[in-house]
Amino acid sequence: MSQLIKRFNITDPFWKRYEDLLSEVVIPYQEAVLRDEVPGAEKSHAIENFRLAADVVKNGKEPGGFYGLVFQDSDVAKWIEAASYSLIRHPDSGLEERIDRVIETIRDSQHEDGYVNTYFTLKEPGRQWTNLQEAHELYCAGHMIEAAVAYYEATGKAVLLETMKRMADHIYDLFIVKKKPGYSGHPEIELALMRLYRTTGDRRYMELSKHLTDVRGQDPDYFVKENAEKGWKIWGMDPELREYAQNQCPVREMTKATGHAVRATYLYTAMADLALSTDDEELKEASERLFKNISEKQMYITGGIGATSNGEAFTTDYDLPNGTVYAETCASIGLIFFARKMLDLKTDGRYSDVMERALYNTVLAGMQLDGKRFFYVNPLEVIPGISGVVPDCRHVLPERPGWYDCACCPPNVARMVGSLAEYAWSVKDGTVFSHLFVGGELDLSDALGSKIKVETRYPYGETVTYTVEGNPVSLALRIPSWSSTCLLTVDGKKTDVSAKDGYQYIKCKKEAILYLNMAPRYCYANSMVASDSGKAAVMRGPLVYCAEGTDNGGDVIGLRFKDGGRLEPLPLSDDLMGTVKVEAEGFREKTSDELYSSERPKYDPAAITLIPYYSWGNRGKNQMRVWLPVK
Amino acid sequence: MSQLIKRFNITDPFWKRYEDLLSEVVIPYQEAVLRDEVPGAEKSHAIENFRLAADVVKNGKEPGGFYGLVFQDSDVAKWIEAASYSLIRHPDSGLEERIDRVIETIRDSQHEDGYVNTYFTLKEPGRQWTNLQEAHELYCAGHMIEAAVAYYEATGKAVLLETMKRMADHIYDLFIVKKKPGYSGHPEIELALMRLYRTTGDRRYMELSKHLTDVRGQDPDYFVKENAEKGWKIWGMDPELREYAQNQCPVREMTKATGHAVRATYLYTAMADLALSTDDEELKEASERLFKNISEKQMYITGGIGATSNGEAFTTDYDLPNGTVYAETCASIGLIFFARKMLDLKTDGRYSDVMERALYNTVLAGMQLDGKRFFYVNPLEVIPGISGVVPDCRHVLPERPGWYDCACCPPNVARMVGSLAEYAWSVKDGTVFSHLFVGGELDLSDALGSKIKVETRYPYGETVTYTVEGNPVSLALRIPSWSSTCLLTVDGKKTDVSAKDGYQYIKCKKEAILYLNMAPRYCYANSMVASDSGKAAVMRGPLVYCAEGTDNGGDVIGLRFKDGGRLEPLPLSDDLMGTVKVEAEGFREKTSDELYSSERPKYDPAAITLIPYYSWGNRGKNQMRVWLPVK
Repeated sequence: MSQLIKRFNITDPFWKRYEDLLSEVVIPYQEAVLRDEVPGAEKSHAIENFRLAADVVKNGKEPGGFYGLVFQDSDVAKWIEAASYSLIRHPDSGLEERIDRVIETIRDSQHEDGYVNTYFTLKEPGRQWTNLQEAHELYCAGHMIEAAVAYYEATGKAVLLETMKRMADHIYDLFIVKKKPGYSGHPEIELALMRLYRTTGDRRYMELSKHLTDVRGQDPDYFVKENAEKGWKIWGMDPELREYAQNQCPVREMTKATGHAVRATYLYTAMADLALSTDDEELKEASERLFKNISEKQMYITGGIGATSNGEAFTTDYDLPNGTVYAETCASIGLIFFARKMLDLKTDGRYSDVMERALYNTVLAGMQLDGKRFFYVNPLEVIPGISGVVPDCRHVLPERPGWYDCACCPPNVARMVGSLAEYAWSVKDGTVFSHLFVGGELDLSDALGSKIKVETRYPYGETVTYTVEGNPVSLALRIPSWSSTCLLTVDGKKTDVSAKDGYQYIKCKKEAILYLNMAPRYCYANSMVASDSGKAAVMRGPLVYCAEGTDNGGDVIGLRFKDGGRLEPLPLSDDLMGTVKVEAEGFREKTSDELYSSERPKYDPAAITLIPYYSWGNRGKNQMRVWLPVK
Repeated sequence: MSQLIKRFNITDPFWKRYEDLLSEVVIPYQEAVLRDEVPGAEKSHAIENFRLAADVVKNGKEPGGFYGLVFQDSDVAKWIEAASYSLIRHPDSGLEERIDRVIETIRDSQHEDGYVNTYFTLKEPGRQWTNLQEAHELYCAGHMIEAAVAYYEATGKAVLLETMKRMADHIYDLFIVKKKPGYSGHPEIELALMRLYRTTGDRRYMELSKHLTDVRGQDPDYFVKENAEKGWKIWGMDPELREYAQNQCPVREMTKATGHAVRATYLYTAMADLALSTDDEELKEASERLFKNISEKQMYITGGIGATSNGEAFTTDYDLPNGTVYAETCASIGLIFFARKMLDLKTDGRYSDVMERALYNTVLAGMQLDGKRFFYVNPLEVIPGISGVVPDCRHVLPERPGWYDCACCPPNVARMVGSLAEYAWSVKDGTVFSHLFVGGELDLSDALGSKIKVETRYPYGETVTYTVEGNPVSLALRIPSWSSTCLLTVDGKKTDVSAKDGYQYIKCKKEAILYLNMAPRYCYANSMVASDSGKAAVMRGPLVYCAEGTDNGGDVIGLRFKDGGRLEPLPLSDDLMGTVKVEAEGFREKTSDELYSSERPKYDPAAITLIPYYSWGNRGKNQMRVWLPVK
């Protein structure tokens, strides 16, 4: 069952707002940036690169004029993908027309042999495929393939799909037919080829994906050899950093998530996808090991991953510093991709719980509530004057900047949120799986003769009501692990909740109502996490909360939770675009002048106001903390 | 009153052991390293560089053969200085003879115009004085001047002193007579010239010190201009990093300690020295501001300074991370230099408290108990597997290495500990000031007709007994701010302790006994220090304590102090070369498999064994933590 995006019409206030924001603000803004029409934003030049490349290919102009990073093309791709999702819900003939023009330019930039890439067409002609480690050629191809699939599925128009099939054929010819050694420095092509395979039915694309995945660590020295031969460089990255590039060993032997967190999760997503599609038990076990390692040892409570800015990378088990963290928005998006594929491999709430955690916290925090500014790095502790300033925290910005020269995160958020239905639902063997609680209408008339309407104020409300029209439906409802108690009524009858692997399987004729336990709760990290020892965080439903200075008299570093203290949700307010804040019973340490003192600190009782983590940083620079010491 | 080293014979068990260790182990070992006679240690070549340079100057050989860092000469200088102090207490004709040979080589490497520096003589002839920012020429000169003064005062032999006077004259001629612009990238010459001035009485050296200090930020662009002109480089350091180099503004206008912490404290030491020697009120106020900023906002509880490895530098107020800290041993030595000069400006326990804190904790921790291995970086939290491994903690080693290619710290510890008397005592206007509690005999027969014998088991024992022979003595006894209660008997009479600025002024005929409160105590950091919020550290007397895995079943991250819990000193044992451990009442968090859980953590009661911070890392790699959460 694909194209759930087309079948699911989102109506709940939380996600509808985001969907509208995407269509009305984010996608037009990103388009304007890509067209270099936003004064003050970093110059993108990404669409202009394609125009210049088309001039070279079609009109025989001299190469030249490339601007941006080596993967600048992928910004256009991710924007087309996000815009495609948006077009399904918000048809906009003007936008569609403009995308068609961009697609024609991309097509026109394609060389006779199928090759598409503006960096090499304009800046390094003749050097194609000589620097797989750094050049992001396969990465850009992957993103454009994803865009092609999405645009085709949204509009039925195949120009970009045909273009990218030719590019995929070119790559197939190179790596499979001509047996070129090597693989991509930045995984992405592998998961994209699986999408292309599913849309076209052409198994060669799966074969190519499997090849590029498996060959990786089978030749851990490929980048070293390439580096010795290539005679040119982009950044001069060290080819010996194998864990960074996830080529330290064959992927089937991997036990621990390593290296650049986006690269890692994109690779693991393809592994899980291939494991299912090729029924590969070994690959399945490797994927499961890697997922377990991330979710049980290397993930922030916000679903952020990548503890260090050095290589934007995983470090090691239980190393989760809050103030020097990286936790790139794109890495959490990658983690959601990975979890979603694991969920296809096995229906298990462990995967959907992680998906939800990353989505509602890090990914949403990546975008300003007004859709205009973005975080790349998502810290769990911010102190203006230190964060963004001192060397070890220079990457940790206390406010979202508008656009980055490396603009991977903004369009990635847009395509993630725009394709929410694919993460919220799946249908398998006649059973409809509800993975995420999103209000709207799911039209399965053609397949099952049913429509399912979901009403909820999630993530703030505690009920999720499923109303079935037409045939009765086999429903598998996710029972989140965080909801210690759950009530369920099915067609008016109270039903015991005895979830199997995190899902409750029911048959529903008319209506099922799930009551989740939305009482705010304290959460504690494993005692091995040094950064969080003696501390607690607060969650309510799927949302991680944080204390921000604005609500707490400026200083949050002096705040302490009272051990076992009362947590009270405040009424849903319009503040921060509609939010339930939580008030926690606690203390505020009295300030003193001394740096060190042997006098026991004195405290005043304090009501600590907490806001959802995703909404932090929307009211100017101020202190923010997720983990507060418990007193 | 100078040459206190010669007048004070240390006898207490704590410092006598260190003094013997210096003579018997550290200085011979460092000599062997400098002579490249230690298998497995980093090659030094420092003495050989001088031999080769002498061959160039004296025998007209071709330049070449330099090995090491640009400041390799300073290793020899610091070793000669430390060895000079050692010779006073442990005359060793073999060592003295060998130093004389080294000194002759240094003298022979001196050019006709007085210039001494092996890097420029061997490797970059003709480029003298063109790269003040990077080349450490004035820094090496400064250290060799200090060595010359120390060796002259220890032995009365003036060969090196005469050599370095000629070098100082050469520098005077350059900067004062010929008015060359610029100043040293790494301060050191400024404080060294003040020592040379005091030993020789030649005021030109003070004039030169004052010039090099004042000109610094008066021309904040000097390094930028030099960089544009010089046409060669050593590391390619950014000349725009003004705060790093303490040239962002005239030194008199500085309000906050910035940049490389060793450079900073060496500069501030000279400032305080000049303020006193030239009676310069403005410079005095600036020194006081900088001292306050460090000691009240940028200093670890261990007396460590420099929160980041990036530039080995100060960062900003209250930024004191425990696990990514730098806290270089040399920086704490610089802080002691600075505090000592401040104490000359004004007798105030604030300065001696800092001096003591840095000495007994960071400086001593810098050296293995057996004197054979050294820390450059002195962390307050170590987790093997993370520390020394993950990128942000790569510089934080869990064990002391033997020798570094940049070997500044080991000989610096040796010269600091070797000249302890200069920090323990001062004599002014007939009053004898006891700044640090060190057992031994101070012979002031010639000046005051008295001898003072100090008996103590400090830093472990609680009494310090001063016995006076000869004339009655005016004594100013430091009353440490950490000793909440103090008892004092003077000549058998109980005396009220009402310290003025941290000192008790008494007249003593026969005996004064100071009883310090050595009860172990919890200490708390200012509530603005995010890394320590909700945590406590334990101190006893001047010693900071820490929990090490070896004493605590491996894991210290799961340990919690009980709020207000009992602290009990254990009997003095031979363990760790003689130490009083402290047992703290606390808890150990029970381990769990989950990364995050909403179940309140469970705890077992635990007796936490704490050892003095200076003794950590002597029993293999294991976890270590100074600040433990309070439960």
